[in-house]
Amino acid sequence: MEFSSKLLQNAVHEMSQLPGIGKRTALRLVLHLLKQPEERTEHLSNALVKLKSEVNFCKKCHNISDTELCEICASTKRDGTVVCVVEDIRDVMAIENTSQYNGLYHVLGGKISPMEGVGPQDLNITSLVQRVKEGTIKELIFALSSTMEGDTTNFYIYRQLEGTEVATSTIARGISVGDELEYADEVTLGRSILNRVPFESSIKAT
Amino acid sequence: MEFSSKLLQNAVHEMSQLPGIGKRTALRLVLHLLKQPEERTEHLSNALVKLKSEVNFCKKCHNISDTELCEICASTKRDGTVVCVVEDIRDVMAIENTSQYNGLYHVLGGKISPMEGVGPQDLNITSLVQRVKEGTIKELIFALSSTMEGDTTNFYIYRQLEGTEVATSTIARGISVGDELEYADEVTLGRSILNRVPFESSIKAT
Repeated sequence: MEFSSKLLQNAVHEMSQLPGIGKRTALRLVLHLLKQPEERTEHLSNALVKLKSEVNFCKKCHNISDTELCEICASTKRDGTVVCVVEDIRDVMAIENTSQYNGLYHVLGGKISPMEGVGPQDLNITSLVQRVKEGTIKELIFALSSTMEGDTTNFYIYRQLEGTEVATSTIARGISVGDELEYADEVTLGRSILNRVPFESSIKAT
Repeated sequence: MEFSSKLLQNAVHEMSQLPGIGKRTALRLVLHLLKQPEERTEHLSNALVKLKSEVNFCKKCHNISDTELCEICASTKRDGTVVCVVEDIRDVMAIENTSQYNGLYHVLGGKISPMEGVGPQDLNITSLVQRVKEGTIKELIFALSSTMEGDTTNFYIYRQLEGTEVATSTIARGISVGDELEYADEVTLGRSILNRVPFESSIKAT
């Protein structure tokens, strides 16, 4: 792509570094900003720079937070004996949206992935083990995605917890509510039969 | 969507103002930036702010340019008697990529669209008429998209040029090279029959 201006080229180049944004989309976004009042661009760049420089992570669960302890960790209404281990803060938001969980979280910040050069030391695992060893946590719920990386991470943490008395569980895998059986993939359908639940408890959940 | 941090919420809000970027995508992009080194965010925001504050438009054709006169207008190798009228600089880039055009351009900056509150005074039409009246331009090629707005704009400019001796043309509409006739829409196919070209000239073009 040939640009008539270095400034434009540079802006498009930087924009296209974002995931899922190609050169064409970047050009469209940049030209849109050019047509808008100058404040638009300033607000956007200030918000990004400010977030990056002033961002704070909860010292307990590593969720993004403006305070030292995030709202969830600081709340007295939450059950401090259950901790849900998630990959990133989007998972916290997704689970919070269900209104079905009243425990705390632990945000790992990723999954162990040798292919992408992410090892256990890059994730918030040490602090999780530390939290468990303090003794108040009774159950850890692993809620990582069920990929090879997710399973590896779960297993690594599980091994680190040997010798402690914490119970571990993973979220249920099964057919989505409302899905047709015939279109479900075999692995999921197979697991949903193996891990079937008593009918009475399925009634209670709805 | 509930955020655990005002800073994060603000960044996502600003990012989601861009066209085609919803809240979820905005969150993904912002979290991606958070994981990257601080320079990434700084480079992006600097590039955007710098483009917006220092951007310069060619005083002749209104293309984005770092110099007073853009490379195309300043070139002695281009044919100054033909001017192609386009909506925005992406169209200039698209036509330049074909290597089939050696004339100059005029970037309108949009199309007349009463629905979006864009009138003739918002576009670079006066300067186009002025350029024509200077007398060196022999042909104007209208290359706006063939929508109602594009046709309206073409017609408005055409009326403004009454009394001048400039020739006007529009780019050919027809079946795309390589397309199957049976899948073409009727209007395009109809036009491509009405505006058929001598077989000899179609051989020359390939």
